[in-house]
Amino acid sequence: MIQRKNENWFRMLFVWEGSVLHKVLPRLILLLVFSISIVYFKGKLFDFKIPLNPAPFTLFGIALALFLGFRNTASYDRFWEARKIWGALLNDSRSLARQALTISGYPRDSKETAIFINYLIAFTYALKHQLRHTDAMADLEQRLEPSLAGQLQLVKYKPVMLITEMGLWVQQAKETGKIDTILQAAFDNNLNKLSDIVGGCERIASTPIPYSYHVLLHRTVYIYCFLLPFGFVDSLGWMMPVVVTFIAYTFVALEAIADEIEEPFGTEPNDMALNAMCKMIENTLLEMAGKPIANEDSVKGYVLD
Amino acid sequence: MIQRKNENWFRMLFVWEGSVLHKVLPRLILLLVFSISIVYFKGKLFDFKIPLNPAPFTLFGIALALFLGFRNTASYDRFWEARKIWGALLNDSRSLARQALTISGYPRDSKETAIFINYLIAFTYALKHQLRHTDAMADLEQRLEPSLAGQLQLVKYKPVMLITEMGLWVQQAKETGKIDTILQAAFDNNLNKLSDIVGGCERIASTPIPYSYHVLLHRTVYIYCFLLPFGFVDSLGWMMPVVVTFIAYTFVALEAIADEIEEPFGTEPNDMALNAMCKMIENTLLEMAGKPIANEDSVKGYVLD
Amino acid sequence: MIQRKNENWFRMLFVWEGSVLHKVLPRLILLLVFSISIVYFKGKLFDFKIPLNPAPFTLFGIALALFLGFRNTASYDRFWEARKIWGALLNDSRSLARQALTISGYPRDSKETAIFINYLIAFTYALKHQLRHTDAMADLEQRLEPSLAGQLQLVKYKPVMLITEMGLWVQQAKETGKIDTILQAAFDNNLNKLSDIVGGCERIASTPIPYSYHVLLHRTVYIYCFLLPFGFVDSLGWMMPVVVTFIAYTFVALEAIADEIEEPFGTEPNDMALNAMCKMIENTLLEMAGKPIANEDSVKGYVLD
Amino acid sequence: MIQRKNENWFRMLFVWEGSVLHKVLPRLILLLVFSISIVYFKGKLFDFKIPLNPAPFTLFGIALALFLGFRNTASYDRFWEARKIWGALLNDSRSLARQALTISGYPRDSKETAIFINYLIAFTYALKHQLRHTDAMADLEQRLEPSLAGQLQLVKYKPVMLITEMGLWVQQAKETGKIDTILQAAFDNNLNKLSDIVGGCERIASTPIPYSYHVLLHRTVYIYCFLLPFGFVDSLGWMMPVVVTFIAYTFVALEAIADEIEEPFGTEPNDMALNAMCKMIENTLLEMAGKPIANEDSVKGYVLD
Amino acid sequence: MIQRKNENWFRMLFVWEGSVLHKVLPRLILLLVFSISIVYFKGKLFDFKIPLNPAPFTLFGIALALFLGFRNTASYDRFWEARKIWGALLNDSRSLARQALTISGYPRDSKETAIFINYLIAFTYALKHQLRHTDAMADLEQRLEPSLAGQLQLVKYKPVMLITEMGLWVQQAKETGKIDTILQAAFDNNLNKLSDIVGGCERIASTPIPYSYHVLLHRTVYIYCFLLPFGFVDSLGWMMPVVVTFIAYTFVALEAIADEIEEPFGTEPNDMALNAMCKMIENTLLEMAGKPIANEDSVKGYVLD
Repeated sequence: MIQRKNENWFRMLFVWEGSVLHKVLPRLILLLVFSISIVYFKGKLFDFKIPLNPAPFTLFGIALALFLGFRNTASYDRFWEARKIWGALLNDSRSLARQALTISGYPRDSKETAIFINYLIAFTYALKHQLRHTDAMADLEQRLEPSLAGQLQLVKYKPVMLITEMGLWVQQAKETGKIDTILQAAFDNNLNKLSDIVGGCERIASTPIPYSYHVLLHRTVYIYCFLLPFGFVDSLGWMMPVVVTFIAYTFVALEAIADEIEEPFGTEPNDMALNAMCKMIENTLLEMAGKPIANEDSVKGYVLD
Repeated sequence: MIQRKNENWFRMLFVWEGSVLHKVLPRLILLLVFSISIVYFKGKLFDFKIPLNPAPFTLFGIALALFLGFRNTASYDRFWEARKIWGALLNDSRSLARQALTISGYPRDSKETAIFINYLIAFTYALKHQLRHTDAMADLEQRLEPSLAGQLQLVKYKPVMLITEMGLWVQQAKETGKIDTILQAAFDNNLNKLSDIVGGCERIASTPIPYSYHVLLHRTVYIYCFLLPFGFVDSLGWMMPVVVTFIAYTFVALEAIADEIEEPFGTEPNDMALNAMCKMIENTLLEMAGKPIANEDSVKGYVLD
Repeated sequence: MIQRKNENWFRMLFVWEGSVLHKVLPRLILLLVFSISIVYFKGKLFDFKIPLNPAPFTLFGIALALFLGFRNTASYDRFWEARKIWGALLNDSRSLARQALTISGYPRDSKETAIFINYLIAFTYALKHQLRHTDAMADLEQRLEPSLAGQLQLVKYKPVMLITEMGLWVQQAKETGKIDTILQAAFDNNLNKLSDIVGGCERIASTPIPYSYHVLLHRTVYIYCFLLPFGFVDSLGWMMPVVVTFIAYTFVALEAIADEIEEPFGTEPNDMALNAMCKMIENTLLEMAGKPIANEDSVKGYVLD
Repeated sequence: MIQRKNENWFRMLFVWEGSVLHKVLPRLILLLVFSISIVYFKGKLFDFKIPLNPAPFTLFGIALALFLGFRNTASYDRFWEARKIWGALLNDSRSLARQALTISGYPRDSKETAIFINYLIAFTYALKHQLRHTDAMADLEQRLEPSLAGQLQLVKYKPVMLITEMGLWVQQAKETGKIDTILQAAFDNNLNKLSDIVGGCERIASTPIPYSYHVLLHRTVYIYCFLLPFGFVDSLGWMMPVVVTFIAYTFVALEAIADEIEEPFGTEPNDMALNAMCKMIENTLLEMAGKPIANEDSVKGYVLD
Repeated sequence: MIQRKNENWFRMLFVWEGSVLHKVLPRLILLLVFSISIVYFKGKLFDFKIPLNPAPFTLFGIALALFLGFRNTASYDRFWEARKIWGALLNDSRSLARQALTISGYPRDSKETAIFINYLIAFTYALKHQLRHTDAMADLEQRLEPSLAGQLQLVKYKPVMLITEMGLWVQQAKETGKIDTILQAAFDNNLNKLSDIVGGCERIASTPIPYSYHVLLHRTVYIYCFLLPFGFVDSLGWMMPVVVTFIAYTFVALEAIADEIEEPFGTEPNDMALNAMCKMIENTLLEMAGKPIANEDSVKGYVLD
């Protein structure tokens, strides 16, 4: 996630970091050179004039904007849904921690509550690592008993297994008479929500926007942009490359941003800051349990990862 | 579902597999030939000039794009809702499995929990087969006792009957004193959700977008595309077939994709990968129960079915 | 609901049944005749040339498409919400039936469960008749005891009264010691949902899209279509009636479809198939209770009512 | 709410009542006169020709339509959300009434259930009066005991206080041994929903669409409409006032409708029929309790208030 | 929040307070001066004519409007979601207060209920201060016991800690036999909702719309507006600066409003009136508990903060 205050309106025109410009610049320069050569040759190809004018581009440009708008909205919805699910993870972790602290019958500073809080924190890290396809073991070993950590190493769906562990913890609390089945059901209800959270993340991660949309819109955007110079070379003259590159910048950059936020669990600049969120959840749970909060990392540059 | 990494922006322009192009190509070639013949005859029909120009096409092209956008959004919403429902199936199955493993009072490796887990897996397969109108018996017989499998053969709504079986399993656990009515209610709550999942899938499968929309938009798209050549033959000359085919490609392909994902339970390339999802649910449930995971199929080509 | 397989793209252009064309045809023919007479008189009215050109129509046509798109989306949302509510009715009926069969303590083939299942089926039919303003008594008498059916005859909100009856059934089960208050609350929770379903249907049926929208958009569409011929008579000549009728077809037909699905409980071709749904709910509930399924009607033509 | 059957398509063009035309007519006449005078002076101001043409109006008209579409959708969503909340009030009232009749342990015709039903009815009226800033006392005194009605007179948030009264009623039922805490919790759950309903209505009533949107779009619509005549005076001649007034009618009327339904609890023709809904809720609750239904008012004209 | 009655349509054209005009005026004046100088030099730069015409601006203006529409909708959705969450806070506080007053077993005027109500009020203020990054201690010390207030001073996530305190209060009520675990679970359920509310606010506050969108749309809007004068200088002459400034006003002001409401917890004029809402929640809770209501502030000007 890019964390940057809004600048003055004028200076914001020249922002480089946080802009997607550096990603699409090579393509735009290619288009610019292409446009300039078309101006130079006055829209001719081997002495053969390409007969195009602005009319079909106006007609189609708006249709293209509409379809790109659809793609963009769908991507943004995925991003925001993913963010909501991680927000629910924060809420639900706090609720479970509160239940462990207030209704479980264990004292606030008992070993049992500490174990449960650690399950919750380990769950968060395990989910992050699953979504980013990274190795969870270092984070898990730090927070769990070696035996459980060892068991988890062999397991494919680690967060799910941790929910089962929490269920067993609650079952044990019932068996030792700390809670009755009513409070067990109250815990269980929040464990159901954790299960929904894992599945929600897996759904977004495993089901991209149908691939055919990608191909179709990608093609349409680029063919459109590379035909544009022929349409405007006669009426705009040497201003054509400027105008065409400007229009192409908006279309191409919008597609690039949509591409980035479509997979919100990745590590590109506009993706979700899963690391920072894991740390934040860890901190708030530790604070609830009366434990010292870890120091927060100083952010380097503008990007939270 | 087409599973394919995003290519380099340039190579993506020439992707063939995963594109919907091969489906609409014959129609586009027909239009191309039609356009070329119109260029050849200079927009005349038996020496009679068709008096059309770009103005009405601009006016109407944008309206068409808007209506197509509506159709497309409605189709995508169906696709995504179907995906959400199958995601809920995963979440709910895991929750029920966790309940069976932690609160039912049966040991983790008991015969009873194994039966319940098998009910859940069989439920998933039965739902898939119902939605795809295929025969569920092979998958059911593999996972259920012969007597129950035999009973199900005669039943029309198999997944619903399996939920009732799960309800009877829970009732038995209560009658044998394993759980009390509070935990029974907790199970029952998740069985209600399974019922919502079956019904949600049946709703999407049995209620397409109103047929009149199909007819109206289909007609409008094709009539528009086949009138386009007359409108641009004078101003674009021999470039007209290229431009018209390009515009038609976007409109026609968008309609084709919308058509495909509108029925997300089918077996077309952009439909949901129900087979892969069933296998995934089976694996995660078996893992929770401490059973060995089945090997995953190697995917052939880019398409998960 | 029109139930019809998608045809080949070419034959779909000439579909008659299921299209809304037959409804709007008279208006389109009127417009066609009007346009032809304008071509004949070259846009003059008593030797007085109407000075119109395409520019304002382009400007306004797109605005019109946008507003029509809003109307259309609002109508479709109503249709889909109504469908969701009936889907929830299916899910909730099955859940209640499952509860009656598994947790109520009555044997599966007892008289009591049969009565409860009949309440659920009668509820479905009563709701359908209330929404379509038809007489429910025949369907109710077939499924309920004469005394209760007689009582219901005098009642205005029949489905609500049937929910109360179900509540009394559950209360009796508690009083005879079959269930405790915990399971009663689990039943009660599902009865709450039935109550939401009745109210949701009543809401959609009693609150149309604000009437002023209808009037405004209707007027705008028709005035626009009848001014169009003047705008294009000079530039399109004798092709003008064709083009104008084609554009008008899309606008007018879209408004007609939106009008039809806006009241989804009606009996027009694109409305919901309440009859078929009632029969389907009856079948699945009977199957759950181990009763024989009624034969399904053979559908006549393409329309499910 | 305007309750009016859809007319024949032709007669609907001339509907007066239920149209928003009478509201915007003076402004349109002003614009018409302004346009005619511009035709008369041929777009000159003191012999100084205003150099405008259709191009910028096309460009901007579509942007304007888009922004107006946003405003309109936001208003309609508010209207529909308010309607949903009142629908939930109906559903929840029925659920609470059913609980009072079936699970409370009081006989159906006892004094206690009658009191509870009256609380529910009084709650509905109190909410209506709070939202419309009218005096609730007449309606409350008719349905509540004088002592409670007197207490409520001094209270600002009357509906909330009535929910508390219902909570006390339930608490009393528990203390007299009619229900246990499980059924009390079931009641309490529905009281939570009533609380959500009050707050939801207050939210919509107290938070309009941000005021700056109103000002910006209002200004843009009117400036646009009053500049239009200059843009089309040369190309449309004496037809310009007709076309301009037609376009302005759509824009201005759409803004007026959006304005009306944005505050759905008001008493303008397109606002929600709170009176009719209160009466309907009263009737259905009385019917459930076996009490005679009040006669419904005969609607005067087309407007339900 | 700007609280202002809708004026007469004519006077609303000249509203100053509540309009975003004063914010964007300097930029518009700069553009106006720029446009006038271009008229003066007839679109030439050092005797070099800039060859631009309206065509590409029409094409691109509509695309720009679409993208701006997306940005605007996303901002408004954030605003409205934030408002819904604060609405849920009101509802949930009332529900918890009702539970404390009716089901907790404490008398209505006991010290314990007073403490719980104060927890709820303090929670609201703590949340406001966290979201606005202001110091909560003055508001907390006024409502909480010194010891608890002192503890909270060191705590980072104050609202979360207050929910835990409420959980302990409920736990104490259970331990002293006032409530059983069933009613404790009913309380706990509403505490879960409070946890969702805190997390929902934090989500909106900590996750802006991806920064790259800001940069891209900001740039596109301003470059477009500053190129516009060249496109229309030839066809509109001295009217060009008027038209260009008018168009730019709409685009730039819409972006400015979207910017303001995107962060709804701030203190800009169109942001949410958190202060007024805190006071309102305090009043309604005090009224429920039979305590005197604090006087409401007289609003100064049109802005509630």
